[in-house]
Amino acid sequence: MKFSEVIALLGDAATCNSLPIDGVDPEITGVAPIDTAAPTTLSYIEGGKFADWVEKTAASALILPADPDLQARATARKIAWIATSQPRWLFARAIAIFYQPFMPPPQIHPTAAIHPTAEIGDGVSIGAHVVIEADVRIGNCVCIHPNVVIYPNVRIGDRTVLHANCTIHERSQIGADCVIHSGAAIGSEGFGFVPTSAGWFKMQQSGYTVLEEGVEVGCNSAVDRPAVGETRVGSHTKIDNLVQIGHGCKIGSNCAIAAQVGLAGGVTLGNNVLLGGQVGVANQARIGDGAIASAKSGIHQDVEAGMVVSGFPAIPNKLWLKNAALFKRLPEIYRLIRQIQRRFNLEDLRSRIERS
Amino acid sequence: MKFSEVIALLGDAATCNSLPIDGVDPEITGVAPIDTAAPTTLSYIEGGKFADWVEKTAASALILPADPDLQARATARKIAWIATSQPRWLFARAIAIFYQPFMPPPQIHPTAAIHPTAEIGDGVSIGAHVVIEADVRIGNCVCIHPNVVIYPNVRIGDRTVLHANCTIHERSQIGADCVIHSGAAIGSEGFGFVPTSAGWFKMQQSGYTVLEEGVEVGCNSAVDRPAVGETRVGSHTKIDNLVQIGHGCKIGSNCAIAAQVGLAGGVTLGNNVLLGGQVGVANQARIGDGAIASAKSGIHQDVEAGMVVSGFPAIPNKLWLKNAALFKRLPEIYRLIRQIQRRFNLEDLRSRIERS
Amino acid sequence: MKFSEVIALLGDAATCNSLPIDGVDPEITGVAPIDTAAPTTLSYIEGGKFADWVEKTAASALILPADPDLQARATARKIAWIATSQPRWLFARAIAIFYQPFMPPPQIHPTAAIHPTAEIGDGVSIGAHVVIEADVRIGNCVCIHPNVVIYPNVRIGDRTVLHANCTIHERSQIGADCVIHSGAAIGSEGFGFVPTSAGWFKMQQSGYTVLEEGVEVGCNSAVDRPAVGETRVGSHTKIDNLVQIGHGCKIGSNCAIAAQVGLAGGVTLGNNVLLGGQVGVANQARIGDGAIASAKSGIHQDVEAGMVVSGFPAIPNKLWLKNAALFKRLPEIYRLIRQIQRRFNLEDLRSRIERS
Repeated sequence: MKFSEVIALLGDAATCNSLPIDGVDPEITGVAPIDTAAPTTLSYIEGGKFADWVEKTAASALILPADPDLQARATARKIAWIATSQPRWLFARAIAIFYQPFMPPPQIHPTAAIHPTAEIGDGVSIGAHVVIEADVRIGNCVCIHPNVVIYPNVRIGDRTVLHANCTIHERSQIGADCVIHSGAAIGSEGFGFVPTSAGWFKMQQSGYTVLEEGVEVGCNSAVDRPAVGETRVGSHTKIDNLVQIGHGCKIGSNCAIAAQVGLAGGVTLGNNVLLGGQVGVANQARIGDGAIASAKSGIHQDVEAGMVVSGFPAIPNKLWLKNAALFKRLPEIYRLIRQIQRRFNLEDLRSRIERS
Repeated sequence: MKFSEVIALLGDAATCNSLPIDGVDPEITGVAPIDTAAPTTLSYIEGGKFADWVEKTAASALILPADPDLQARATARKIAWIATSQPRWLFARAIAIFYQPFMPPPQIHPTAAIHPTAEIGDGVSIGAHVVIEADVRIGNCVCIHPNVVIYPNVRIGDRTVLHANCTIHERSQIGADCVIHSGAAIGSEGFGFVPTSAGWFKMQQSGYTVLEEGVEVGCNSAVDRPAVGETRVGSHTKIDNLVQIGHGCKIGSNCAIAAQVGLAGGVTLGNNVLLGGQVGVANQARIGDGAIASAKSGIHQDVEAGMVVSGFPAIPNKLWLKNAALFKRLPEIYRLIRQIQRRFNLEDLRSRIERS
Repeated sequence: MKFSEVIALLGDAATCNSLPIDGVDPEITGVAPIDTAAPTTLSYIEGGKFADWVEKTAASALILPADPDLQARATARKIAWIATSQPRWLFARAIAIFYQPFMPPPQIHPTAAIHPTAEIGDGVSIGAHVVIEADVRIGNCVCIHPNVVIYPNVRIGDRTVLHANCTIHERSQIGADCVIHSGAAIGSEGFGFVPTSAGWFKMQQSGYTVLEEGVEVGCNSAVDRPAVGETRVGSHTKIDNLVQIGHGCKIGSNCAIAAQVGLAGGVTLGNNVLLGGQVGVANQARIGDGAIASAKSGIHQDVEAGMVVSGFPAIPNKLWLKNAALFKRLPEIYRLIRQIQRRFNLEDLRSRIERS
């Protein structure tokens, strides 16, 4: 389709575009990254170190930030463009014009093993070799990819997608519009063992896991259930791959939890919390609304709302940046101290001589 | 059932209870966490920051520590209680009174693909779409959930449970009373590549993995087999989710290994070792009996029996706590040094003037 | 077979052997680790702390380094030996003489669910309950173990092995001679969410993942696909278990990536890069050819070719070793500073007195 049609489909999010300037209206056949874009594709630049790609990209059209210089450079190269304060968001919407994700048709594969007590909604797709145990309830338009296993008494909300080879354990409650990626385990047993003189005593995990609506859980992540009560992930929280959510965690809404994060048992996150990759949070720690922990932080204590923390043990990010810079200079600092000490002793000696 | 009946079922582990004090004997229908307990449930308090919940909980009965004050506060609120030196253990036993974990009936699902040379014990449950290859031997009362794959020549001991979508690789020996959680890989190929001038040369992993009796392996964890010989996990050792056990590791008995721990090749752990979440242990390191590594520790060297280590590189915990506190004060320390230096130079100048 | 036959099969990689010295030519029935080797087995010693095993091992033959002393000690114990500059490599080749990995016969199991549009090469083995979606093309002699799921439009090269319970997502291109281990997810959706005032906006992941020839991906690892363009892993790169490769990463050839490493989005690795266990690399960072990051490093910035980095944030390894040593001595350093300060103030006082 013509770039002008793409603009029309994107609606009013953009501030201005190149069409009134030079009228170049290329045919757009798809979307592409800036560095490997071919002619007839649309790409985007957010600024920063990608800005200079405007001189090199082969894309026929670009989504640009509100940067007149960048826009002029695009125009000079006969690249059509549209500008917005949020290029990445507009590009995300442009992808959706050209790409339809794979979605199998609504049908139940004959090899699926479905318990007769399970209730299945309308328009559901159930792939080959799926197993659904007793008393499971599946909402409408749910998509269950092949080889998924659902233990008894699970609830799955409307339009939720379960990718291949994931496992949903007993009593889990998954809301509407969730996505569970391949290999993830939801509602698996919490790691609950009580030390006794006779060894570990296994605490039965009688609780369950709740994922509210719009939650995503990445590949091979695990969201354990607790001994009693629930583990809860709030609505629209997004969890990346290989993340561990321990038993009894309470996670608020709209959080983003990057890959390989580990939350120990009973951790509480507020809303809009961001955790970088490989962050660890200790048992029972509480992290307030809007707090941010940068990658690899190790959080042992409560973090107040809105704080940005880094490091292990985690401290305020600005302090950590200073300390990390000084840490690099530890050998220099140590030399300085030794120098001072040596000169001081010299002085000391001199003063003693003078005193004598 | 009545609280007095619960007490009778729990046996003689408790020191005293409220029945002789005020005779309140509530009906108990289940177990619950202290903060969300409803009437007719039993909960527990270990002390610490949870102690004040005794004033707010709606639970009808509590397991309490040997703390007369806490007991009196419960009695004042007409909450029945039982006291013990190990509230969490007693609560674990109380859960087992009210909760029976899901266990499918002993039957072999018709869709399971079982090699004719496999030997299956009595009372075994084999779920839908399970695959069992040649020369596998399964003990009695084993429970294999759906979509599990067992490669050739594997041994599974009595009463062991294999959760959905886990994979047991060739020649693995899994003892009695083990639990392998969803997505775990047991006996998978070790990461063995020899660098040569022609690139990586793959070392065939001809060894096997042994899990002794009572071992648990968490969701999506991997216990690799070695090139030659065995990887061994000692009896009653508990391994959490997303843990990596490298080829040729020897792990003792009764260890607890928290989520996302990684052991490189050839690591040796003694008995009763505790590793916190996200700990890493380098190739060939040896950790003695009863040693503890706190979360996120990075262990490059041997750790003596009974030591508690922290940090990266791991050092004795007490030293690490001091250092971590000083690390936070590095900017202050640096300012101090600069002050000293400046004042010292001043003095130095003065002394030179005096000398002149 | 006789040790002399083993030597003949190993070819010309060895520099010398014990046969001309004492003519002892034992029967060899297998390969074993040095510490548990039984008579009639072949083992190896690389040197270092394993050297003293030459006095204790029960192995009948050894692969030794070019170390005349070690060779003499073996000869003295009537152990036959062969010497080489690369004992581990020669041992890897010796394993391949005695061990044939499990490989199911080329046949398609009747329970596999294969879309009629899929193209399957010659000599392919497809296990029970495998699912192959539309427009997939499988090369010759590919081995697909049970319960693997392949989404639409995937390409799998000749002789590649897919282990049980792994998932290959839409449009992935897997080259020849690759190995994907159990539970791994290839081409899964990148973690792409744009923050907006209305919450997270999901960026459709329209790209795909390419694994070039000879790549291995470990158990439960994930190699995500990007929103646009490709994620690429270069030829012969080896990836261990539980590794996260974010969307849009470009990884060169012959890299080795140890367990639990996490690469955020858009990371670039050159060729021959080595990343130790639990390393994390931040968004868009570039790591040059031949660079090495030791275990648990946290890399926020570009790393030049050939550099060795350690720590978090990662700094040159030699500096890190110094700093880590000084970090242990922080309490001592702090005491020193306080001493200087106290004595300095004393001096200061004295000088003021003198001045008065």
